[in-house]
Amino acid sequence: MDYSEEALRKHKELKGKISVSLKDVLDSKDKLSTYYTPGVGAVSSYVASHPDETRDYTWTNNSVAVVSDGSAVLGLGNIGPQGALPVMEGKAMLFKHFANIDAVPVVLDVHTADEIVASVKAIAPTYGGINLEDIAAPLCFEVEERLKASLDIPVFHDDQHGTAIVVLAGLINAMKVTGRNLSDAKIVVTGAGAAGTAIIKLLHLYAKPRIFAVDSQGVISANRKDLNDEKKKLLEYTNLSGIDGTLEDIMQGADVFIGVSKAGLLTSEMVKSMDKHAIIFAMANPIPEIMPDVAKAAGAVIVATGRSDFPNQVNNSLAFPGIFRGALDNRVSKITDEHKIKAAEVIASLVENPTADEIIPSNLDERLVPEIAKVIV
Amino acid sequence: MDYSEEALRKHKELKGKISVSLKDVLDSKDKLSTYYTPGVGAVSSYVASHPDETRDYTWTNNSVAVVSDGSAVLGLGNIGPQGALPVMEGKAMLFKHFANIDAVPVVLDVHTADEIVASVKAIAPTYGGINLEDIAAPLCFEVEERLKASLDIPVFHDDQHGTAIVVLAGLINAMKVTGRNLSDAKIVVTGAGAAGTAIIKLLHLYAKPRIFAVDSQGVISANRKDLNDEKKKLLEYTNLSGIDGTLEDIMQGADVFIGVSKAGLLTSEMVKSMDKHAIIFAMANPIPEIMPDVAKAAGAVIVATGRSDFPNQVNNSLAFPGIFRGALDNRVSKITDEHKIKAAEVIASLVENPTADEIIPSNLDERLVPEIAKVIV
Repeated sequence: MDYSEEALRKHKELKGKISVSLKDVLDSKDKLSTYYTPGVGAVSSYVASHPDETRDYTWTNNSVAVVSDGSAVLGLGNIGPQGALPVMEGKAMLFKHFANIDAVPVVLDVHTADEIVASVKAIAPTYGGINLEDIAAPLCFEVEERLKASLDIPVFHDDQHGTAIVVLAGLINAMKVTGRNLSDAKIVVTGAGAAGTAIIKLLHLYAKPRIFAVDSQGVISANRKDLNDEKKKLLEYTNLSGIDGTLEDIMQGADVFIGVSKAGLLTSEMVKSMDKHAIIFAMANPIPEIMPDVAKAAGAVIVATGRSDFPNQVNNSLAFPGIFRGALDNRVSKITDEHKIKAAEVIASLVENPTADEIIPSNLDERLVPEIAKVIV
Repeated sequence: MDYSEEALRKHKELKGKISVSLKDVLDSKDKLSTYYTPGVGAVSSYVASHPDETRDYTWTNNSVAVVSDGSAVLGLGNIGPQGALPVMEGKAMLFKHFANIDAVPVVLDVHTADEIVASVKAIAPTYGGINLEDIAAPLCFEVEERLKASLDIPVFHDDQHGTAIVVLAGLINAMKVTGRNLSDAKIVVTGAGAAGTAIIKLLHLYAKPRIFAVDSQGVISANRKDLNDEKKKLLEYTNLSGIDGTLEDIMQGADVFIGVSKAGLLTSEMVKSMDKHAIIFAMANPIPEIMPDVAKAAGAVIVATGRSDFPNQVNNSLAFPGIFRGALDNRVSKITDEHKIKAAEVIASLVENPTADEIIPSNLDERLVPEIAKVIV
C-alpha cells in the first residue's frame, strides 16, 4: 500500500482524526442544568476550594496534552506547528486506542525555551499530563527539565524516554539471547540528539556499560572543541577512557550498535569488526542505518529496527500508553528514572522466551498497558 | 431537583463530561501506518508547505478552544483555573450538543493581559476558533481586542457578545410587541462589565437609542472622577445629555431596563416610574434584579430573565453555537459587528408572532444553528 497517498486521501476525507464526545447526552433541561448552569456552579465552587480534588470532577483524571512546537517532526525537521498537527492528532489517536486516554494535540507557535515553558505552564491546569513530542534537541532537554520542575503533573518527552525505555527492554532480552551481561558490554550509539541522549543516560543508570556516543563529527570526547553543553554532559556517561576517532574506529569490538541517526550509516565492514554475536539496533526511519539482511550477512545475530515490516520493532507505542495510564490512574506527578527502568523490565518480561527474532513484544500485546501501569506508582 | 447536589454527584461519577473519540478505528497495521507513521509524514509535509489547507487535513476545521483564566466564573468571581474547568467542560458540551463542534477547555494559570494573549497566541494553530469565557472586565476587552488583531481565526468573548446578541434579538421583538421604535427608546443598563458594555455598544450600533449606563456608583457621566478607561469610553454611546444621578433617578420615564448586575437591584417603585408598557430584562443569575411577578405587578409588560423557569430566557446558547458553526463552515476569520447584528435579527425572526411571553425562541429550536450559520459569511 502507498501509505503517503492513502494518508493524504483519508486525512482529507475525515478532516482530521479526532473529535470530542460527551459522557452523557444533553437530552433534557435537567441535564443542561446539571452539567451547565446552575448546577455546575456547585462543582466549580467545590473544586476551587478543594483543588486537590479537581481530578475527581473534571476530565483531568484522563486528559493529556500532546505538545509540539513542530521543530523536529518525524524525519521532516522544523516544519512548524501546522505541519506538526497531523502527527500530534495521530499521537492522540494512539493514546486513545492503546490506553483509553483522552489526549488532544497542542501545537505551539513559539519556539524559544522560555516561551514554550511559559505557554505549557499557562495551560497545564487543563490536563492530567503533558506529553512533549517532536521538539528539537538540545531545546527539548531544557524545556522538559523546567516543566518537570514547575508542574505537579507528569511531563514526559516521548522522543527521549519512550525510545530509551523500549531500547533498554530490547537490550535486556538481547543480552539473554546472546549470553551477555549488559554491564560488560561495549555499546556504540550514533546520533546524540533527543533519543540518543536519553538512551545513553538510561543505559548508564541501569548497568553502567561502556558507552561511546558518535555524532556527525565522530566519537564524542573531551578533546572535541565543538560540543554543546548537552553533548559535554554525555561525557559523564560515555567514553570514560577518552578515545578519539571515527565511527569505524570505535565500532571495532563493539557488542552493541544503537543507531538513532540516519539511513545507511553503518557498513558491513563495521559490523564485521564488532564482537561475535553482534547486536544491532538500527532505528533511523524510514530507512535504517543498515538493512537487517545486510547486517545479518555481516555476522549480526540480533537486528532491531523502527519498522513494522522487520522483526524486533522498537516502537514508542510499547511504552508511553502504559506509562501515562499508570501515572494518571495512580496520580503520579513525576515520571522518574526508576519508573522508566521498571517499565523497560516489564516490556522485556512480556517476551517469555526471547529469541534473536523476538526480543521485543508486539505493540498489540494487550498485557502491555495494564502491566506497565502497575509499576508507575 | 437540587441541581447543586445532582451536579456534584454526576460530575464525580463521570469524572468530567467530555472525552476524545477517533474518527476511524485503528484495527489494522495499515490504519496505524495511514494515520500515524509512515503515512502521516506525507500529510505533515503537505500541510507545512500549504498552511492555508491545514483545515482540510486536521481537526482545525471543527475545533474550538474554550479559554478562561477563571477570573469571573459564573456568579462565583475569581476562582482560578481549576474552579473554571467544570464550566469550560460544560461549555464544550454545549458546543458539541448544539453545533457538533469539537470544543475543548483550556484553563489558564496566568492572569495578566500580556500573559493571556501570549498563551492563546502560542496555542492558536491548534484550533479553528477561540471562545473566550469568564474573563473579568476590563481585562477581557484588551485580551479580546489584541487576540482579534493578531490571529486569523475567530476570537469571540461570549460573555460580551453572546449576551449582547440575544438581548438585541429580544429587544427587536419587544419593540414590536409594545409598538415602539428602538431608536426612540430610553434604555437603562445596570452593570458596566463585560456583558453590559457589549450590550450598550451593540444597541448603539444598531439603533442609537438613548442609553444610560449605571454602575454601583450611579449613572455613568462625564462628571464622575472614578471611571476606568472602559467606562469612560461608554460615554461615547451613553448619557449624551450629561445627566448625573442614581438608578432611581434615571429610571423615571425609561422604556427599557436591562440588568446584568445583581439580585434585587430594581424595585417596584422604579418600575412604576418607567414609561407605560415597560420592558424589563433582569438577567442577574440566579436571582434577577427583580422577580418577574413583582415587575409585572408594578406595570411591566415584558419581562425577560436569564432563567429557564420563566418566559423569555436570555441564554447565550441561542447565539454562540450558530456563530461558531458559521465561522468554521464559511472560514470566517473575524466575527464582526455586522455578524452580531445579523445573528440577532435571525434569532428574533424565529419567533413568528412575538408576544409578551415569547420574544425569544427556545434554545432547543433546531433552526437556530443553521439559520445563524448562514449569515456568518
